[in-house]
Formats: sequence, structure tokens, C-alpha cells
Amino acid sequence: MNIRQEAAKMKQCAPEMAASSAGTRNRALELTAEALEQNRDRIFDANARDLAAAQENKIAPSIVKRLKYDETKMRDSIEGLRQLMTLPDPVGKVQLARELDEGLVLQRVSVPIGVIGVIFEARPDAMVQVASLCIKSGNCVILKGGKETANTNRILFEIIKNCAVEAGLPEGCLLQAELHNEIDELLECDEHVDLLIPRGSNAFVRYIMEHTKIPVMGHSSGICHIYADASADTKKAIPVIVDAKIQYPAACNAVETLLVNRRTAGEFLPRAAAALSEAGVKLRGTTEAADIVKENTGLEVDIMSEEDFATEYNDLVISLKLVDDVKEAVRHINRYGSHHTDSILTEDDEAASYFCRMVDSAGVYRNCSTRFADGFRYGFGAEVGISTGKIHARGPVGLEGLVTYKYILSGSGQIVGDYASGKKQFHHRDL
Amino acid sequence: MNIRQEAAKMKQCAPEMAASSAGTRNRALELTAEALEQNRDRIFDANARDLAAAQENKIAPSIVKRLKYDETKMRDSIEGLRQLMTLPDPVGKVQLARELDEGLVLQRVSVPIGVIGVIFEARPDAMVQVASLCIKSGNCVILKGGKETANTNRILFEIIKNCAVEAGLPEGCLLQAELHNEIDELLECDEHVDLLIPRGSNAFVRYIMEHTKIPVMGHSSGICHIYADASADTKKAIPVIVDAKIQYPAACNAVETLLVNRRTAGEFLPRAAAALSEAGVKLRGTTEAADIVKENTGLEVDIMSEEDFATEYNDLVISLKLVDDVKEAVRHINRYGSHHTDSILTEDDEAASYFCRMVDSAGVYRNCSTRFADGFRYGFGAEVGISTGKIHARGPVGLEGLVTYKYILSGSGQIVGDYASGKKQFHHRDL
Repeated sequence: MNIRQEAAKMKQCAPEMAASSAGTRNRALELTAEALEQNRDRIFDANARDLAAAQENKIAPSIVKRLKYDETKMRDSIEGLRQLMTLPDPVGKVQLARELDEGLVLQRVSVPIGVIGVIFEARPDAMVQVASLCIKSGNCVILKGGKETANTNRILFEIIKNCAVEAGLPEGCLLQAELHNEIDELLECDEHVDLLIPRGSNAFVRYIMEHTKIPVMGHSSGICHIYADASADTKKAIPVIVDAKIQYPAACNAVETLLVNRRTAGEFLPRAAAALSEAGVKLRGTTEAADIVKENTGLEVDIMSEEDFATEYNDLVISLKLVDDVKEAVRHINRYGSHHTDSILTEDDEAASYFCRMVDSAGVYRNCSTRFADGFRYGFGAEVGISTGKIHARGPVGLEGLVTYKYILSGSGQIVGDYASGKKQFHHRDL
Repeated sequence: MNIRQEAAKMKQCAPEMAASSAGTRNRALELTAEALEQNRDRIFDANARDLAAAQENKIAPSIVKRLKYDETKMRDSIEGLRQLMTLPDPVGKVQLARELDEGLVLQRVSVPIGVIGVIFEARPDAMVQVASLCIKSGNCVILKGGKETANTNRILFEIIKNCAVEAGLPEGCLLQAELHNEIDELLECDEHVDLLIPRGSNAFVRYIMEHTKIPVMGHSSGICHIYADASADTKKAIPVIVDAKIQYPAACNAVETLLVNRRTAGEFLPRAAAALSEAGVKLRGTTEAADIVKENTGLEVDIMSEEDFATEYNDLVISLKLVDDVKEAVRHINRYGSHHTDSILTEDDEAASYFCRMVDSAGVYRNCSTRFADGFRYGFGAEVGISTGKIHARGPVGLEGLVTYKYILSGSGQIVGDYASGKKQFHHRDL
């Protein structure tokens, strides 16, 4: 397949897709939900082939688990589609209505972005989720999933595309790229692709960002922090720290660094370290932190350098450091963090307010786990990714991140010359 | 000056700037307005030196006019500052407030983007406008103006910076780059600069886009269209076409191509061509358009090729073409246009609605001049640029385009494990 040619065709098709009615788009989701159920055997067969290949290629069991598309995952997909149908249409919302002058009315209306390229990890449920979010938001999408689920992806894509066309959406609204070299072709389609959303490893996302002129929405890394303030309530705090580390260590919103206020560290840090260690977490930290932990618990802490605090472990490992106060904590986070999600544990409103104002991250939390940073948990229906950039969308990106807007100005022959000469004046009256 | 070092320092200063109060930011604008008046002689002296140098360098009079900073321009600057003060604070707006579960409250709050780099043309009033928009929106900014107004820029920058610091904003919130090679240094600061806004020629903006990993907001070109539908009201339509072409031909929102419905072209096109020609506009077009014009008016039309319709003239030149209907007009615009601003002249609601839905541009207009695409005219106070991209901001970009948001989640010890296990459920209640 020639991705450039296909992307150019898709760009021509995008206005038609954008103009499709919410009813048509929801109908495509409903048909897909039904078709998944009807094609269960074909889908599970395809997935079995992917799983067999994975075993042959000796892929690690933790990865194989993600490749699996079973009854539970299908039920989740179908439920996700039905939930998405109930969400309000993100397209056609009037964001601003203003009469510039008598009979000259400006409206700002939400519209789909146009053509989006999404490159995602080998997870068949991601194919359904990403495609359905793009359909719901009226975008054309080029989908490239991980090769380890090629068979499952192919049939899921075929089903979704058939349902979209059956519902009345344009033939060219969905495209699947299957070959790895097609990613590089896609990166060159800056004339026809409006946005790229890469998901996957940190290195992969950075590769995409560095090799395309297309705007990229993605997270560069997830170095999340928890700061235990002097006034933290230990009973609440320790479970939050443990949850943020162990509930899903490979997730980008898992905590990597625990900062503890020096004043209360002698009491707090040993307890936190013991709880983490008991949960299987390996401890690293500054000499100061290590000494306190060792002295009070006997646990060993690997000594680490200052620069090491910029490490994303994605594993059962945590960095420990003491700070003087919330100010030093904020400085550390803004310097070594990845502007993803950071949490303060404190009963002190002033410290919490300072932290939330000054930490420059997509998510700033108080007294809860960083693991809450997620589109489903925020109630967005689903997420197409988490953005650590600041432009366009930040944090978990749901339907709202998949639309932009256009200005519609309606007049009756108005010319700028009359306003430049002073013959007429704008009155800018919001409607 | 080492731009990388300075940008790194600015990044550290950005949270403090972002947390400044609206009162402090408005006070900086007020002090600047006063200081401009108080320093009028120094400013006009500096500008006289720039103008003398321009004359020595034989710069064209049309450009020299833009370099000038006189009584009128200063009055406009001061008025602009005072208007900006009256606009609501774009920072700290609660965009979403939702209880995810009992005692777990999510807020989405607007915050400044952080560190912005603006590279703008040699116009002293632009220095005041850009700096004040960034101050009002709580952003740190690196300003690089055109070298032809270096003396005026230097004193204006000094005044604005002193006023910002006097008002209580952090010392590091404003930085001026003065050397051309500092632009290339700035392009490499992707770790510390969150957004670049280049203004100037098409070639320059493209150069910036192609040489940086920093997100860029700018317009790549302004190929705007007017489509005169079969049902256009000639009396309204002709003045709109002439205004869109001649009111300021060098502007990006001036019209470059007139598309005319074939059914009424025999009547409409000669009249439009005559009016344009009388206003000093050179005509280009397809053979078909040329024949009609020649036959009815005797006026000469340069024959142009199809590919030539992608030309931005920025001059008193217009391209003419006939189309079958609104559908063909839309196809032409989406293919050859630059997604900036396009207008339909019609009394037919259905054609207008189709046009506004299907034209993929930042501005879609009915029965008015494309020249209305402007932040002042839209009532945004001012604009920092016009975006032809679709990500983050589109069309004239005012204060709203200079902010992003963060999610603030406040709890009392909630952990994700409880929701994953089913022990607790989200209820997602909007507040």
C-alpha cells in the first residue's frame, strides 16, 4: 500500500466524514458492537493464531497477556462502544456566538481535526477503542497496531470498517497500515495528516516526535512523584504510595520517586520503606535516605546519583529523597519530572495549594494515587492517549482532544473598508 | 547571550509567573501604558535612528511605514494595553469540576502555557502587543523582533520589562533576543520552550516549522478564496470581492482566487473583473474565464495553469476560475487553499450551509470579506498570530490560545486498587 497516496485520498474524504451526523456515527458504533458478538468465533480464531505465534517466538508471558482477546476483553470492548454512544456529540458545539456588528455574526463551532494517525501497541482492544473514538469524533484515521496481533487486528479492522460504511460513513474514513515500514511513510505525510498519536515505549514516542513535521500528541515519559509533606497523615499516605507504585508498575502514571519532608522523615520514611519493601519494591535513594531506612528497618537502599532521579523504572523500583519543604519538592519535580502526574500527601491546605499551583504537570494531585490519571477514571469514556505536551490537549485525551474548531462568519455584504475608515464600528455583542 | 541557558532559567521561572495574580499582571500593563507616555521622547528618538538607518539602507517606503512608531501608533499601543487590562483573566478558569467518587474531586483549570518564543516582523507596535498578551496570560516570553527596528525594540523592551518587575512579576519573565543567529539557538531549546509563534513571510514561517522540535503555531500561507454562487446578490458581492482584494493586499487574509458559478458567470464575471481592474487589480485566470472577461469588457486576463491556483500573491493580482457548483468550489478550495479563510457569496441557505460545513478552513464566511479574519475584529482584544494549523488554536489567536490547562485531583487517601478490585465504584458526578 502507498501510504502517501492513501493519506492524500483520506484528506479529500475528511470534510465528508466531518460533516456526517452524530446519528450516523453512533450507528457505526452500534453496528460494530453487534458485529463483534456475531463474529466472535472468527475473532477468537485469529487471536489464537497470534497467541500461537507469540509462544513460538518465545514472547514473555506478561506481554502475551496483553495480546489476548478473550470473552472478557470483548465484553469490555462492546461495553466501551455502548458507553461511547451515550456520550454527547463532541462535534458542532457552538463555543462562541458574537455579533461583531449589526447583521455580522461570528460563531466558533467544534469540528473534527480531520485525518489522524494512531500508532499503538499490540493490544487488540486498543484497535477497537482508538477506531471508535475517531469515529465518534468524526475523524478519519490511519491505524497501525503492533505486529504481534496482526491477525486479530486485521479482522477487527475489517469488522469496524464494514460497519462504518454500512452505517453510511464514507468508504475512505478508516485505513489500516500493517507493515512496519509504513510508519516511516506515514511520518512524511505532513500535508495530509493533521495529527499523530503514537502510543508505546518512551523511545518509540521520541522517535516519532523527532522524525515528523506532523504535530504529535503523546507522552515522552512518565516520571511521576509523590511528596509526603511534614503534615501527611501516615495512615492515608502509606497505602497511596504503595498503590501508586505496585498497582500497575508498567503504567506511565505509576510513581517513580518518593520525596519525604526532612522534618518527619525519621518517622515516616522507615514506615513507607517497609511497606514498599513488603510489597516487593526495590529501594534506591540518596545516602541520607538510605541511612534512615537502614537504621530503622535494616532494609538495604541502593545509593543513587542526583541525575538518576530522571529515570522511569516502569518496574517495582522506587527512588527515595528527602527535601526541606514543599518548595524544594516542587523544584525537584519540575526539574526531574516529566510533567505527567504528581501528588502531594498533606493535611496542610497551604502546602497543597502551593504544590498544585507550582508543579508544572498535566495532573497535580492531593492525597490520592497518581494511578488515577486515566481517561476512564476521569469519566471521559475512554482515552486515545495521555499527553505530557502542553499544546492542544494535556493529560488523558478523550473525545475533546480529537476536535478543533472553525470560525463561521455570516454577513450581508459587510466589507472591512467601512470599519477601517470609521464609517462603521464593531460592537462585539455576545449572543 | 546564551539563549539555551537563558531559556533554561526561564523555564524554572515559569511556574512563578504562572502563579502570579491577575492584579499583578494587569498592574504591569498599566505601568507600561504610563511609562510609554513618560518615555515618549526617548522612544521617538530611538525610532528616528531606526528610520534614518532604513533610509540609508534604501528600504522601500512601504516597509519604512511599518517601522515607524509615532504618536498614532503609541496611542494605539496604550489603548491596546488598557483594553487588554479590561479583558477577563484567561488563567484559573475552572473548565470542568467533577466528583469521581465520594470525596475525590477533579477540576480542570486553565493555566499559562509556560515559556513562549515569538519571532515577529520589524514593527515596534508588535513588540508591545506580543509582550502584553504574554504578560496578561501569565506566560514567560522570549521576544525576537525584526532587526530594522532594533533601537526602538530595545527601549520598548526595557520599558515593558521594568514595568513587569516593578509590578511584582519575576525578573526572568521577559527576555529579548536581538541577534539573528539567536533564532537558530532558540529553535534548539525544545526542552525549555513550550511553544514558538513565528510571524512574517511564508518562507520564514516554513523555515521555523522545519527546523525545530518545539510545537509551532503559525500560518504557513494565506491562499483565501471567494466563491460567487449562482444566487449571489451582485450588489453586495462585488464590493466584498474588491474589499477582500484591495483593502490590504499584503495581508494573509486578502483573497487570492475568485471562483464563479458557471451558470451566472456570463453576467457576473465581467462585472467583477471590471470592478477589480478599475481598483488596479491585475487579472489572471483560466482560458474560459479570460474569454468571458475579454468578450464582455475588453480587459486582458493572463492565462494561468491549474497548479498556479496554489499561489499567494500578496499583491494586487487575482486568479479567476469558473466552477459548476458549490461542490466543485469546495473541492477546489480544499485542494489549493491554505485552510485560512474562505467566503461564499450567496442568497441560497443550502449552498451556504454546505460551504461552511465542507470547507476545511479556520474561517468559513458567508456574504462578507475575508479581511474580517483578525483578532481585533473578532473582539479578542488583539492577536498574537493567525494559525492555519488545526492543533491547539485555529484562526486568529488571542489570549485563549496562550493558555493550556491542568487537572487538579483532590482526595483523602483514595487508591486505584479499590476501584480495580470492584470494592469502590466511580460515580462521575459533575459539580
